[in-house]
Amino acid sequence: MEAAVGIESGKDKGSRQRLTVRKVVILAAGRGSRLRERKNELKPMRRVLGLPLLERVVLACKAAGLSDFLVVTGYKPKPMRSFLARLARKRSVDIDVVENPDWEKGNGTSLLACCRKLTEPFVLVMGDHLFEPELLAGLLRVDSEDDSCFLAIDRRTERVFDLRGATKVASRSGCITAIGKDLESYNGIDTGVFLLTPAIFQALAKAQAKGGYGLSDGIAELAAEGRMQAYDIGERFWLDVDTPRSLREAKRHLARQVDKPSEDGFIARYLNRPLSIRLSLLLAHTPVTPNTITLISFTIALLGAWLFTRQGYLPVLFAGVLIQGSSIIDGCDGEIARLKALGSRFGAFFDTLLDRYADLAIATGITYGFWLTHPEFWVWLAGIGALSGFLLTSYAKKEYQLRFQKPPPLSFLPRLAKRDLRLFVIFLGAVVGQPFFAMLGVGVISHLAVFWILVRGRRN
Amino acid sequence: MEAAVGIESGKDKGSRQRLTVRKVVILAAGRGSRLRERKNELKPMRRVLGLPLLERVVLACKAAGLSDFLVVTGYKPKPMRSFLARLARKRSVDIDVVENPDWEKGNGTSLLACCRKLTEPFVLVMGDHLFEPELLAGLLRVDSEDDSCFLAIDRRTERVFDLRGATKVASRSGCITAIGKDLESYNGIDTGVFLLTPAIFQALAKAQAKGGYGLSDGIAELAAEGRMQAYDIGERFWLDVDTPRSLREAKRHLARQVDKPSEDGFIARYLNRPLSIRLSLLLAHTPVTPNTITLISFTIALLGAWLFTRQGYLPVLFAGVLIQGSSIIDGCDGEIARLKALGSRFGAFFDTLLDRYADLAIATGITYGFWLTHPEFWVWLAGIGALSGFLLTSYAKKEYQLRFQKPPPLSFLPRLAKRDLRLFVIFLGAVVGQPFFAMLGVGVISHLAVFWILVRGRRN
Repeated sequence: MEAAVGIESGKDKGSRQRLTVRKVVILAAGRGSRLRERKNELKPMRRVLGLPLLERVVLACKAAGLSDFLVVTGYKPKPMRSFLARLARKRSVDIDVVENPDWEKGNGTSLLACCRKLTEPFVLVMGDHLFEPELLAGLLRVDSEDDSCFLAIDRRTERVFDLRGATKVASRSGCITAIGKDLESYNGIDTGVFLLTPAIFQALAKAQAKGGYGLSDGIAELAAEGRMQAYDIGERFWLDVDTPRSLREAKRHLARQVDKPSEDGFIARYLNRPLSIRLSLLLAHTPVTPNTITLISFTIALLGAWLFTRQGYLPVLFAGVLIQGSSIIDGCDGEIARLKALGSRFGAFFDTLLDRYADLAIATGITYGFWLTHPEFWVWLAGIGALSGFLLTSYAKKEYQLRFQKPPPLSFLPRLAKRDLRLFVIFLGAVVGQPFFAMLGVGVISHLAVFWILVRGRRN
Repeated sequence: MEAAVGIESGKDKGSRQRLTVRKVVILAAGRGSRLRERKNELKPMRRVLGLPLLERVVLACKAAGLSDFLVVTGYKPKPMRSFLARLARKRSVDIDVVENPDWEKGNGTSLLACCRKLTEPFVLVMGDHLFEPELLAGLLRVDSEDDSCFLAIDRRTERVFDLRGATKVASRSGCITAIGKDLESYNGIDTGVFLLTPAIFQALAKAQAKGGYGLSDGIAELAAEGRMQAYDIGERFWLDVDTPRSLREAKRHLARQVDKPSEDGFIARYLNRPLSIRLSLLLAHTPVTPNTITLISFTIALLGAWLFTRQGYLPVLFAGVLIQGSSIIDGCDGEIARLKALGSRFGAFFDTLLDRYADLAIATGITYGFWLTHPEFWVWLAGIGALSGFLLTSYAKKEYQLRFQKPPPLSFLPRLAKRDLRLFVIFLGAVVGQPFFAMLGVGVISHLAVFWILVRGRRN
């Protein structure tokens, strides 16, 4: 039997790890009575920001390079089976289902039910434990020379969520010495993520013979033989979602992941993003897709552009509000994509292209509106100057990235020329009744940013 | 001594070839009397389309991954030395110079003069033989298991330029059996590109003892020992530039390399490119740089844009001629860059950015010119529609390439929306006195091309 393990990404080829871990076992047989069951929604199907818990577990494994699953069901196996079939199709993964009629005895019986299907090292995770992909990827990189099994443990015992319900682990120099919920002395917490060899099945059988039907009982047997090692997850995130409180904590964690401050401009970071994330957390519960949000944001921008051509303060003010609103909603498509793992390259492409057309419409609307009261040709020339600045900063950035294989440094001037600030300044201009001159201002800044990007290119 | 060889590019790491070939010896000691000497211009300095022969040899070696040179001089060593020092700085290569006082005896003495400096396998090329980099790169990939030496030979004996002056080679199953200018029976031509081991020095000394001072005499000695192998260059280009006729042939070959038909649109391919190449071949002899040409083309386009705002048929016709001229000259920067190995990523970046600003100026000029006689707001709206189409097709292509890591397929519609056709249609419009409507036509096509690129993105 192969003891060496490695991730399947293909990137690690050539290292001394061998590619033998392919299967992930997910235990999803229990009832989860602590988390109030909803009508027709079993615990693994319980949605966290729009995605079932089990789907998030599958996605984390997939992100770590594994896409071959064995899910053990027990409680209400029928709805679980159809749920899993849909999930496999939706996320393009293989899901094999094993039913465990003895699930009520303990979760050790659930793993033991898979013993015929597993002849190589495999990963074991819980259907209700969230974890970040890098936690599993790190575990898959451990370099084992014998047939040791590994349990990913969290050393931050004092900061673990719901310490009372957690399974404690004691280990010495990497070897697990004891495991259990009521351990007095421990230095780690069981995260529910394992890297096991089929040796676990013998250990489980041995434990059952002594009357221990829990997974921990089997692990304890392996530990007693000195074959159970601890893998320290460091600062990585995991969470056992089995109470309403931990469900809220899971949402908080996911919401924090959605931000992407490094790419954001000033306004996006401090104004748009906080608002759009709140909106996205609400939208996550609906079936609305990122591309639909892109279209909604675009439509609102077009409406704003049209309103800019109406005379009077109120329409212009409302137009400003609309385009600032469109700018905020424009953040939601990416956020929903990240929250629900619905991102696609086309989605990002579609979004960026529509942004350019929205900018074009807004600039044209503002120029036309101003020209109605100032019918002189320079108005059009200035408008063309501004809108070409908007389009060309975006163009220059893409071109720079293609030529130099890296984005242009996002320093002060390019940040000033980003779309968030552009639309916000126009919004402010609308508030004071001068959207045209506000637009000209950001137009000038945009051309300066193009020049700056050109100069940076020269230095490369 | 290491017999295995490989190129230094680093890409071949992990293959079984070892990286031992680092040095290139260039023989440049002779007088080259067949090629009429010009004032202060020795044969290796003789310019072929603006670059000295020897510089082209150095560039070919550099492109094949070698940048450590040993140049043997003989005739007029002083001007050669300063020429080589300038060349080393200009092209960022190492050039060591060995003077051979005995150069008039034969070119075998020139190679022998390097014997102290060469303890590993090395490449030997002639200072007056042009060859394409892939010829040398292929030779460097040969997988030698013993300490054989290799001569790159051309099997196309009937098509070799100047067969009378060429050195003939006879070989049997890869082993060279005879070499010489007056060989009766031969099946290959000596291209002047060698992969040698220091064993050649003993062979040269042996030949000299018998009164043979040519390089071929040394090679013949190695061949007699069965240690000289032939490397078939296949269809690759090489040329011994030692007569005015071969100099013209070299220019013809380089001119053919300059084309890049795969990326060109219809007009570029059949109209602009043939004209711009002729212009580039003239410009190659001047010190004008690609970036200067970019600026000249841009200035001409701006002039055309301004002329479009003048009234009357003649200014508009002249404007059309100017922008079509600018479109032709716009091809020269890249051509000169390729002809003289002056290409830079910044140059390409600068060129593309200025093209966008030129398009902007042209579209604005045409719109303003038309508005002067048709002072209605829709003229400006239509003009903005057209110019945004020009900018956005370029943008959509870059964005597509960044998102999908490949350029969008260059099928009919995107080809129609390329700059060459755009400017040509506007030129035709100017000829018939209707540049504005011509521009609107290509503007519509441009937006259709954006839509098409979006649809292609969806399919990915």
